[in-house]
Amino acid sequence: MKRETQDKKYRYEEIHDRMMRMVAKGVYRPGERMPSIRELSRSMGVSLNTVKQAYLLLEDQRIIESRPQSGYYVRPRGFDLPRQPDFSGPDLSPVQIPSAHISSQILSHAADPGMVPFGAAIPADECIPAAKLSSIMASQCRRQLHDSTAYSMPPGHVRLRVQIARRLTLAGCDVDPDEILITTGACEAVFLALKTLCRPGDTLAIGSPVYFNFLDMFRELSLKILEIPSSPETGLCLDTLETTLTSQKPAACLVISNFNNPLGVSLTDTKKEEMVRILARHKVPLVEDDINGDLSFVNVRPSVARAWDKRGEVLLCGSFSKTLAPGYRVGWLAGGRFREQAFRLKMMVSLASASPTQLAVAEFLHSGGYEHHLRHIRRIYANKTAAMADAIHRCFPAGTRITKPEGGFTLWVEMPEAVDSMVLYEKAMAQGISIAPGSLFSTTSHFRHYVRLNAAAWSDRNAWALETLGKMARTLMDSS
Amino acid sequence: MKRETQDKKYRYEEIHDRMMRMVAKGVYRPGERMPSIRELSRSMGVSLNTVKQAYLLLEDQRIIESRPQSGYYVRPRGFDLPRQPDFSGPDLSPVQIPSAHISSQILSHAADPGMVPFGAAIPADECIPAAKLSSIMASQCRRQLHDSTAYSMPPGHVRLRVQIARRLTLAGCDVDPDEILITTGACEAVFLALKTLCRPGDTLAIGSPVYFNFLDMFRELSLKILEIPSSPETGLCLDTLETTLTSQKPAACLVISNFNNPLGVSLTDTKKEEMVRILARHKVPLVEDDINGDLSFVNVRPSVARAWDKRGEVLLCGSFSKTLAPGYRVGWLAGGRFREQAFRLKMMVSLASASPTQLAVAEFLHSGGYEHHLRHIRRIYANKTAAMADAIHRCFPAGTRITKPEGGFTLWVEMPEAVDSMVLYEKAMAQGISIAPGSLFSTTSHFRHYVRLNAAAWSDRNAWALETLGKMARTLMDSS
Repeated sequence: MKRETQDKKYRYEEIHDRMMRMVAKGVYRPGERMPSIRELSRSMGVSLNTVKQAYLLLEDQRIIESRPQSGYYVRPRGFDLPRQPDFSGPDLSPVQIPSAHISSQILSHAADPGMVPFGAAIPADECIPAAKLSSIMASQCRRQLHDSTAYSMPPGHVRLRVQIARRLTLAGCDVDPDEILITTGACEAVFLALKTLCRPGDTLAIGSPVYFNFLDMFRELSLKILEIPSSPETGLCLDTLETTLTSQKPAACLVISNFNNPLGVSLTDTKKEEMVRILARHKVPLVEDDINGDLSFVNVRPSVARAWDKRGEVLLCGSFSKTLAPGYRVGWLAGGRFREQAFRLKMMVSLASASPTQLAVAEFLHSGGYEHHLRHIRRIYANKTAAMADAIHRCFPAGTRITKPEGGFTLWVEMPEAVDSMVLYEKAMAQGISIAPGSLFSTTSHFRHYVRLNAAAWSDRNAWALETLGKMARTLMDSS
Repeated sequence: MKRETQDKKYRYEEIHDRMMRMVAKGVYRPGERMPSIRELSRSMGVSLNTVKQAYLLLEDQRIIESRPQSGYYVRPRGFDLPRQPDFSGPDLSPVQIPSAHISSQILSHAADPGMVPFGAAIPADECIPAAKLSSIMASQCRRQLHDSTAYSMPPGHVRLRVQIARRLTLAGCDVDPDEILITTGACEAVFLALKTLCRPGDTLAIGSPVYFNFLDMFRELSLKILEIPSSPETGLCLDTLETTLTSQKPAACLVISNFNNPLGVSLTDTKKEEMVRILARHKVPLVEDDINGDLSFVNVRPSVARAWDKRGEVLLCGSFSKTLAPGYRVGWLAGGRFREQAFRLKMMVSLASASPTQLAVAEFLHSGGYEHHLRHIRRIYANKTAAMADAIHRCFPAGTRITKPEGGFTLWVEMPEAVDSMVLYEKAMAQGISIAPGSLFSTTSHFRHYVRLNAAAWSDRNAWALETLGKMARTLMDSS
């Protein structure tokens, strides 16, 4: 009986994913009618209710809409994707990173109850399984008096490393648990990976735009950077990467491969494989940040570039900060052939990560609630992301373009060029609204009129804040 | 009634501390008889039982011994302090740090149940209040569903920072809770302090010998170091410091001021004040590591050098890893006038530290059990340290000298020069015994025949390991 329920559940999600792909491929185009619930039920041999559930989800995600007495239609996509500024070319040269005090301000806003947290990419409170985690934490600490209080020396608790290795099979890789190093969030994982690969003064190739806190990190590591342009539709430009590697010799390359921060885009399997091949040819190791990989809106876990790595030169970074609890600070690094250096570095930097949170996350993964939890929050984020994009489209100046991510929970918004996002940031902050101005995501000035918004913080209660932002942006246009 | 009990308790500790000081000052000298229990009871107006308790503790610490029918006598100090190798002088110049893979091996041994952990300075299992911590952790996580799972952005949970600021008044400083940054252990605190003050290529003055993991950290930060000699009796040589600062210009100075690791010595108040004055005169900021400060064998918390800092240029680092639970990874940095840089740096390196362990430690400090716990474990460590020193004296080659620390739980042991501690390390490891060879504590070769032993791991059950070490050392002497 239980089994049958699970099968049904799986089918409704399968139908959802299949229809979503068909819309994405243009089999059904904006304005066209979708197959009726009855038709689909018959052709796929499932109950009416199963199809209804799939359609409701697609409706939640603003992919289809129901018209009374008429059926379901593919919604018109009312806004364009942000453009990819063209800043590739033969003049690409390593750049020093200017200091940015603002990024730490934005991160601090995340913990400030007086701010609407559209800035930092923090998960929604309702997506944190706090009660379950706390109960697991309590039982783990009581049962494991020694392990919860003693050092968990690098590489970290084996039970957690085994669970992570198991999950990585879903992303197409076969990683030895002994290669995995537990870190204080993905942030420390990336920090350790870069510190393992680069010396001060070295050059790092990065997908651009990039998560602003990383730019600050690169500066602290005294790295120069080469920004390889990435498109919100296809991700990293491999041609530019290839050209750049021929003329420059970066010590490493850093890419956020799935549900990119800020672009929302994932590299296709073909591009991931090609990227790994290009980097291997030039003997440049890759730091792959997969922090959002578990947050695909369709219930299929995307692959990681690491799956095509044959040389141990893709250092894969992940964390449970976006899916379970950011405050647990449980991240990890699969350091490939650099694992030993990474372990030693971890000892020098912070000796070990906290033990109780490692035990609690391991138990959460082990007890089997994680996949169920993911299915739950993926739907919420799909919904929030679509709803916020709609609202931006309504409130922001004409000509605003918005990404349509397929996972994660951030939106990358291109406003008309007259809007300086730094000015918008200051004005918004004065009204208790935190945003992440585009200027912070690059050393170039290409993203001055962009802004990244945290859709996890979207709710009807926060609609006023978005309207205020839109009004401000329009005022900035008029006054320019 | 309860109050009276507490008063009595206080009095017995006061008597213990007073008699201990008298022995230290030579008022009662080795071999001399102590006042009888009856005499002391009468002269100090306390019960016989109170004096008995004080004497039992002194006996535990191997400071006095009872002779049947005759009373208590000051024990002969059967072994000398390690010598302070003379390596100061005009030729003191900055040195690059060689790579040392062994330090991470020693730290790993700490988590290996197959090794006798005389190497890493990890606390004794019986000194970890694991049951109480776990119960506090459980209730904190349940009561604070949001705070225990959400980011605790730098500077960290305010409740914990307030508790730390209160404790710092015992060490003679008045620190604003808003200056305190919660870190992943004292290790990260020192890392952030150094990264705040130094650029790659800079020179750092350090008290030498120094905790080996720090040497690895300095290398990772691309720092050159100036080793300022420290004596096991009086600590850092201020004359050498002064001379060195006149000719060199280090970016910062790092000193472990209380119950130094490895020397066990604390700087007197006068020396702390003088050190702060010298550094201020040369405009060199101080990173003060006070990780063992709470572990004084007499129940008086020593001051920190920071107490004499008027310029915000002493960056004070501490942690609860030695006193509560190393696995909780709760440390802190009071960054003085560099606090903002340190906060930002923390965000770049690991974003934030784990929230649940911060909440648990804050509650432990708040609920008032910490002082009581300290009194309990101080006695255990005093006892273990003294007992292990005695055992070393019995087992090791003639001429071996041992520190007599007044806090913490490490012993610094000088063996005859013929014993190469690196060889001893390898041989001991093969027998399942971990030690910390002296070579790791300096870039000089002055400590090749030294070894640091973790007295927290001392127990009758581990006596065989010490005997084995002693036998190995004697064999190494004979074969040299």
